[in-house]
Amino acid sequence: MTHLNPQYEKLSQNYIFPLVQQKMADFKRQSPDNPLANMGIGDIQLPLAPSIVRGIEEAAREMEKNLYGYGPAEGYSFLRERLAVFEYSAYGFSTGEIFVSEGINNAIAAFSELFPLDASVGILDPTYPVYYANNILAGRENIMLLPCTEENGFCPSPPENHLDIVYLTTPNNPTGIAFSKDALQEWVDWAIEHQSILLIDAAYKAFITSENCPKSIYEIPGADRVAVEFCSFSKSAGFTGLRVGYTIVPKKVSLQTKNGPLPIGKYWQIQQDTKTNGVSYVMQKAALAALSDEGLRETAEQVATYQKSTKMIYNALKAKGQICYGGMDSPYIWWKVPFGSDWDFFDFLLNTLHVVAVPGAGFGRSGEGFIRLSGFQSEESCKIALEHLEKIEETAR
Amino acid sequence: MTHLNPQYEKLSQNYIFPLVQQKMADFKRQSPDNPLANMGIGDIQLPLAPSIVRGIEEAAREMEKNLYGYGPAEGYSFLRERLAVFEYSAYGFSTGEIFVSEGINNAIAAFSELFPLDASVGILDPTYPVYYANNILAGRENIMLLPCTEENGFCPSPPENHLDIVYLTTPNNPTGIAFSKDALQEWVDWAIEHQSILLIDAAYKAFITSENCPKSIYEIPGADRVAVEFCSFSKSAGFTGLRVGYTIVPKKVSLQTKNGPLPIGKYWQIQQDTKTNGVSYVMQKAALAALSDEGLRETAEQVATYQKSTKMIYNALKAKGQICYGGMDSPYIWWKVPFGSDWDFFDFLLNTLHVVAVPGAGFGRSGEGFIRLSGFQSEESCKIALEHLEKIEETAR
Repeated sequence: MTHLNPQYEKLSQNYIFPLVQQKMADFKRQSPDNPLANMGIGDIQLPLAPSIVRGIEEAAREMEKNLYGYGPAEGYSFLRERLAVFEYSAYGFSTGEIFVSEGINNAIAAFSELFPLDASVGILDPTYPVYYANNILAGRENIMLLPCTEENGFCPSPPENHLDIVYLTTPNNPTGIAFSKDALQEWVDWAIEHQSILLIDAAYKAFITSENCPKSIYEIPGADRVAVEFCSFSKSAGFTGLRVGYTIVPKKVSLQTKNGPLPIGKYWQIQQDTKTNGVSYVMQKAALAALSDEGLRETAEQVATYQKSTKMIYNALKAKGQICYGGMDSPYIWWKVPFGSDWDFFDFLLNTLHVVAVPGAGFGRSGEGFIRLSGFQSEESCKIALEHLEKIEETAR
Repeated sequence: MTHLNPQYEKLSQNYIFPLVQQKMADFKRQSPDNPLANMGIGDIQLPLAPSIVRGIEEAAREMEKNLYGYGPAEGYSFLRERLAVFEYSAYGFSTGEIFVSEGINNAIAAFSELFPLDASVGILDPTYPVYYANNILAGRENIMLLPCTEENGFCPSPPENHLDIVYLTTPNNPTGIAFSKDALQEWVDWAIEHQSILLIDAAYKAFITSENCPKSIYEIPGADRVAVEFCSFSKSAGFTGLRVGYTIVPKKVSLQTKNGPLPIGKYWQIQQDTKTNGVSYVMQKAALAALSDEGLRETAEQVATYQKSTKMIYNALKAKGQICYGGMDSPYIWWKVPFGSDWDFFDFLLNTLHVVAVPGAGFGRSGEGFIRLSGFQSEESCKIALEHLEKIEETAR
């Protein structure tokens, strides 16, 4: 009988979000009359901005008149050029260094295929669990976890040893902490010295407000030689249900080949040409609409709503004497659990306060003892969240 | 310096379609006044059907009112249930065995990750080149090519040896030949005996007209134990620019694991959960619209147009004494080149008749000596194609 790829047996079965969903569903079945304040999965809460809806409608009507068949795997120039003008030409990049994707999850998983199976990998701990999962599935065994702790301000420094690739998420999910300019400079200098490649997940960059935290790795001198940046419209423009992202693959970032160092972008193009047929034309037009003046104004308002909600929840917890991190540069609050394990505290929040959170251990071993709250809340759902959390002092003591 | 995955160096650089595009672009630059009859890349030619456009517009407007964030990686039930009712419940499948994808290319590439690196693989020769490319990139070395020749009617029988997985495309691209019921029964019986898995690419099944050629592998008794079928809206409903497909993963198809045989669908779900965030809500609604009564009527008309064009081109070539295959159950004509190599004949067609085709060698070694013509032609472009081909007799002798 045909065998399963043995790597798939190494993956922990309890992937965090399905488990949270399951417990939430169980609660709803048992207590249908108790409304939940959902601060669990980090999904957007507001409907799609009108200008993006108009963009989709227009693109669909265009397709009724003219043929739009297979598009380029790397994305249409109209979107790549707009992204260049909007942000990346300021760092000296050309359109050819910007690749459209179906989102960071898809792109960063596929990107790791470009490296050998024996590549050494650095991954933040805790972080979004799919980098680790992807590398396990690929069969990589040389994985170094980089603990993000209260002691290092949740921003670990580079190790002394060499690593071939390092995943850095800034602001990090779940800690909600963005790397400072100095911290990123340290990583870029290290990557140049060690001839390593940094894979930057910038999914939440729109939420950065601290002045000393760069929104792009390319604000750091030298980063264009060592860093690939993965971006998305998901959190900045409400695209979690639309699926468009983009990846900056600088031509100066090289891999060692039989014929000497060659730009990694050449192989990313081959990967995309071979395994995808690009992103829907309509969705690329939706992304273009998100980058129009109107789209930018509307989506900035949505981000501002989430930022406001996050800060209100953060401040409410602080006022109750709770120890919290994040919240400033990210829609996530990283709450040090006041008692028990993070799964104990998860159950307490769910069953007593009727609040859904995500246990920190789900993001890696160093996440134990913390719980993540999502600040993706509308004005209305934020109010409900605050009401539920109001009881934390009296019940948790 | 970080190394390139060495498998990427094993891939032939001249992927066929970019090379054809290049030669076409060169011709256009040198002869801007000579219009080309494009029968090259197998892309659709007609604009999107009105009902699908309306479906997209409605879905976008829904998103303006209500939140549609992350959807399930396996697809929304509304689409999976419609696919079950429309076709697959007739074969005894439930909704849980139907997975929505971004198209066959993405799905079939990702699906091969479920098998071990040392899995033995069977691939038709010639066929769509990405199965071979994907397995080379994965590092698989045990690949057996199954020649499709005039002698075997372009439908090879199973080998005597065991293979873990076999890719079968029916109708095959580029030969345009669909496997008969008897030929498929032979493969299913062989797969049951050898405990192998058949990966069926059914991209062009809407074009099958021969009564003895099944549109789905599941018309064959026993297939639900050994076959996974990959389908797409691309060619049947003009979705090449929208990107929606679906995969039938029967619960009876198992893989050998540490804990004995387990359904492959369990691992496909893990793969999709880990590496994707599902398909755009709007595009899944577009697919649903394509399966509405109106959508089915409109897209059937488009398929009929392509079928008519294909047959007219096929008959015109036959009338000129040319040796051609396919055309009956597929939008492709497999033309035995009357002189020179297939690339010689490609150049002749381009430069003398101003016709773009695809050389057979691009689809595998056994494709040498043939050239593929695409019958995805509107009434208008078909007329132009016929005018260009009219001169074949006088110039080719």
